[in-house]
Amino acid sequence: MSSPAAASPASSASSAPRPIDGFHAVVPAGGAGTRLWPLSRQGSPKFLHDLTGTGRTLLQGTVDRLLPLTGRDGVLVVTGVRHAQAVTAQLPELGAGQVVAEPSPRDSMAAIGLAAAILAERHGPDVVLGSFAADHVIDDLDGFWSAVTEGVAAARAGYVVTIGITATEPSTAFGYIRAAGPLGAEGAPSARHVAGFTEKPDAETAAGYLATGDYWWNAGMFLVQAGVLLDHLARQLPPLAAGLRAIAAAWDDAGRRDAVLAETWPGLTKIAIDHAIAEPVAAAGGVAVVPGSFTWDDVGDFDSLAALLPAVGVEGGRTLGEEALVQRLDAAGSVVVPGAGRAVTVLGVRDAVVVDTPDALLVTTRAHAQAVKQAVDGWRERGRDDLL
Amino acid sequence: MSSPAAASPASSASSAPRPIDGFHAVVPAGGAGTRLWPLSRQGSPKFLHDLTGTGRTLLQGTVDRLLPLTGRDGVLVVTGVRHAQAVTAQLPELGAGQVVAEPSPRDSMAAIGLAAAILAERHGPDVVLGSFAADHVIDDLDGFWSAVTEGVAAARAGYVVTIGITATEPSTAFGYIRAAGPLGAEGAPSARHVAGFTEKPDAETAAGYLATGDYWWNAGMFLVQAGVLLDHLARQLPPLAAGLRAIAAAWDDAGRRDAVLAETWPGLTKIAIDHAIAEPVAAAGGVAVVPGSFTWDDVGDFDSLAALLPAVGVEGGRTLGEEALVQRLDAAGSVVVPGAGRAVTVLGVRDAVVVDTPDALLVTTRAHAQAVKQAVDGWRERGRDDLL
Repeated sequence: MSSPAAASPASSASSAPRPIDGFHAVVPAGGAGTRLWPLSRQGSPKFLHDLTGTGRTLLQGTVDRLLPLTGRDGVLVVTGVRHAQAVTAQLPELGAGQVVAEPSPRDSMAAIGLAAAILAERHGPDVVLGSFAADHVIDDLDGFWSAVTEGVAAARAGYVVTIGITATEPSTAFGYIRAAGPLGAEGAPSARHVAGFTEKPDAETAAGYLATGDYWWNAGMFLVQAGVLLDHLARQLPPLAAGLRAIAAAWDDAGRRDAVLAETWPGLTKIAIDHAIAEPVAAAGGVAVVPGSFTWDDVGDFDSLAALLPAVGVEGGRTLGEEALVQRLDAAGSVVVPGAGRAVTVLGVRDAVVVDTPDALLVTTRAHAQAVKQAVDGWRERGRDDLL
Repeated sequence: MSSPAAASPASSASSAPRPIDGFHAVVPAGGAGTRLWPLSRQGSPKFLHDLTGTGRTLLQGTVDRLLPLTGRDGVLVVTGVRHAQAVTAQLPELGAGQVVAEPSPRDSMAAIGLAAAILAERHGPDVVLGSFAADHVIDDLDGFWSAVTEGVAAARAGYVVTIGITATEPSTAFGYIRAAGPLGAEGAPSARHVAGFTEKPDAETAAGYLATGDYWWNAGMFLVQAGVLLDHLARQLPPLAAGLRAIAAAWDDAGRRDAVLAETWPGLTKIAIDHAIAEPVAAAGGVAVVPGSFTWDDVGDFDSLAALLPAVGVEGGRTLGEEALVQRLDAAGSVVVPGAGRAVTVLGVRDAVVVDTPDALLVTTRAHAQAVKQAVDGWRERGRDDLL
């Protein structure tokens, strides 16, 4: 006779799901993460870094989270040529065709649209793709997997599907998704129609949103059938759709890819997928939202980074790196990144942010975390492109 | 015919004086400068650094200031064996007999007493010595030279002479000298008797001192005939006086010096010259003060260091080092020492103190300048003696 405890499986929290047939994840890996400078650089952006001390970079964490839903062949990373080698090195489990290198950045519509067109070429137009940025941090894998699974079902019903994050505060740092009535699609019981999207609101507006119960944070996660996406795009921006289809048709032909890319890529319209697809299609009733209850963070600045790190000592400091290198004296709440092997002392500066790297040092406070971009701009103006 | 401008000498402000016959300067070069850590270290204390951006270290500046009064042979530097080589390298103008290396630190009475005993051996007891710490910064050379010249005259009248610094504020960081009536010694018209010395007072007491007009800051500058000093010492601390005389008698005998040092030095009384001589002799009426009107600073911490550096930009920051390495954004009054060649950004921390060295980084504020010693203590407790 075994006890109930011995009979239960080892883990009940994050039992990995089975891969979903015909589902592919697209991971746009771009953006310099300027507000995390000098940790994040143009040449080594934040998605290539382990920012949470888990031993995995944000990119690796993103792929780790998706593989159980897609299987090993079901992840496609879209990044710039500059980072393709680093991305490939960090993801040895991916095959050669699973890292798409853009010749230059042409915003999220071109990146996700190219992925959709390539997947449609390879697997047909009914394949469902889900787009998940490479630099997000998510807790509660079960909640994430559950939302994505519902999202795939809603996408199969022909919708462009977003995943809405439950707003825990009236944040002014995120855009919001406004939900309407239930979608009623099979396999997506919690999905709702989307009435519209909003840009980052002011605090009062955000508080009003929360009071209605109809708003979710927009984390930029989209799920849609490749053919549906390309059809929407063909209606909204025909030249962009045609260009992406032409490139995709040549993508897996080593003899033609570079020539078509060279001819077509530079002329593609630079636009975010939100403006190109999500907003106009939502206005026409074609967008759905699946509410997600998991914890999500885009690690936008050092203040949000701090919240992801464990508190140290009685003063609640945070360290990304070797704690033995850090001494805090009357410096409660300070965030230290001892990234150059040197001993760092913070004395009498509460909520300080000290980021120590081999060639650049940043000293600021958590309250100034959003202003770090100014430092990058300043060094650029001084001609110190080596620091950017 | 030449114009008056062409006929006048190049500089009227600091025309160097002639050397004073029979006057020798003693420069105690010791102390770790803990409150200037990590710029100042045990192995490389503050007097070995150029802290004012003049291109000369504090030690070199001290000797530069004294040589016009003493001539090239008239300066004797007393330092620890650990620093003797660095001192000699920084002062190539001094001869081999002009750097005295103590086997271990035994406080200021042993250091200055040994110098006095060596000078008495070499030049007789009537030689006047003046003691000037190696880590002070003085503006207005004419004022300094004038005070020293009066001080030598007062010393020749048999007094232990201090130079009092005109107090510009009720500082609690310095001890004070209380003056009594005029001394009336030949060649020292402004000299006065000293009624006594006080330790660092509290703010209220200091304000009371200033109101009387009879108090000067005690900068620890003493002038006295070698024989007078040694006689006072023989009365106050006979074993210390005898030990120093024994060492001095063997000092210039290469065959005997080390043996006598090894036998005698470790047993010498550790005491400051203030307690050993200045206070008891003042009580007996044997101490005089010459008021000095020059600007003086002992560069005790990063706040006082800041005051010695030129203000940078509209925000009045201060930089010790290469200004091109520093970017300040909303960081008025911040003090930056970019001492590791790295780009330093200070964003939103007013009056910040950022000291960047190859192995240690300090981030604090000017208001915490006196607390920097805690950082040194903290690293010592962690066993990081390599940082001290």
